[in-house]
Amino acid sequence: MTTTRRYPGDPEDPGLPYNAFAKECPSRGTLEHVTGRWGALTLGALSGGSLRFNELRRRVGGVSEKMLSQTLHALERDGLVHREAQPTNPPRVDYELTPLGHEAARRVLSLIHFLEDSMDDVLLARESYDARGAR
Amino acid sequence: MTTTRRYPGDPEDPGLPYNAFAKECPSRGTLEHVTGRWGALTLGALSGGSLRFNELRRRVGGVSEKMLSQTLHALERDGLVHREAQPTNPPRVDYELTPLGHEAARRVLSLIHFLEDSMDDVLLARESYDARGAR
Repeated sequence: MTTTRRYPGDPEDPGLPYNAFAKECPSRGTLEHVTGRWGALTLGALSGGSLRFNELRRRVGGVSEKMLSQTLHALERDGLVHREAQPTNPPRVDYELTPLGHEAARRVLSLIHFLEDSMDDVLLARESYDARGAR
Repeated sequence: MTTTRRYPGDPEDPGLPYNAFAKECPSRGTLEHVTGRWGALTLGALSGGSLRFNELRRRVGGVSEKMLSQTLHALERDGLVHREAQPTNPPRVDYELTPLGHEAARRVLSLIHFLEDSMDDVLLARESYDARGAR
């Protein structure tokens, strides 16, 4: 399906109902929720199964309570994360990926793992870049 | 290679030299360059071939000159984008993906296209979420 697109954002491609390259397209917002500072890691962390808020927070190193809460709300509103409140005392809330969220998370994790596996090359490129700048 | 990981960020998984879920890992920074507000769209736009700065800026709707410049510098430093200055008058600067950048862009585009294709479901989920909130 993506192979018929000449290139993303091509203004002459009439076949794109949604186009994240266009400023006004609603898919832009969802892309930002999924990839934004914490969205990608939150989706990735949930791909192993449902987690409670504090478990998730430990999994996503460095995220604040406020930022994780905002991230989860945006992902829930977009239909990527399901929030399940158990009628227990104290109340217990679990977060899990929806089927759509699993599909998104699979692609996000493919990118995360690729970058993790490429870090030796990335760090060499940074050294080389910084050395050129210092000349 | 990714199939042997029990889940991303698992503290008991000893096989991960880089782990974007860990706050201090340098792969976290690269993930943010690639997925951050403009990184994903910049990589995606360059996947069709090299572009000049202003061509790229038109392709990535809504990006400011300053933000595109910062995004390109970060991607260049990470070895994902190559900047080629032609010795012409006026000087002409082309940006293109490196082989590593192409690999990253392929994964980013897979995510972008998936989200674009899922927007009908996302917008329905938002309506339903907002209706629940209004009850």
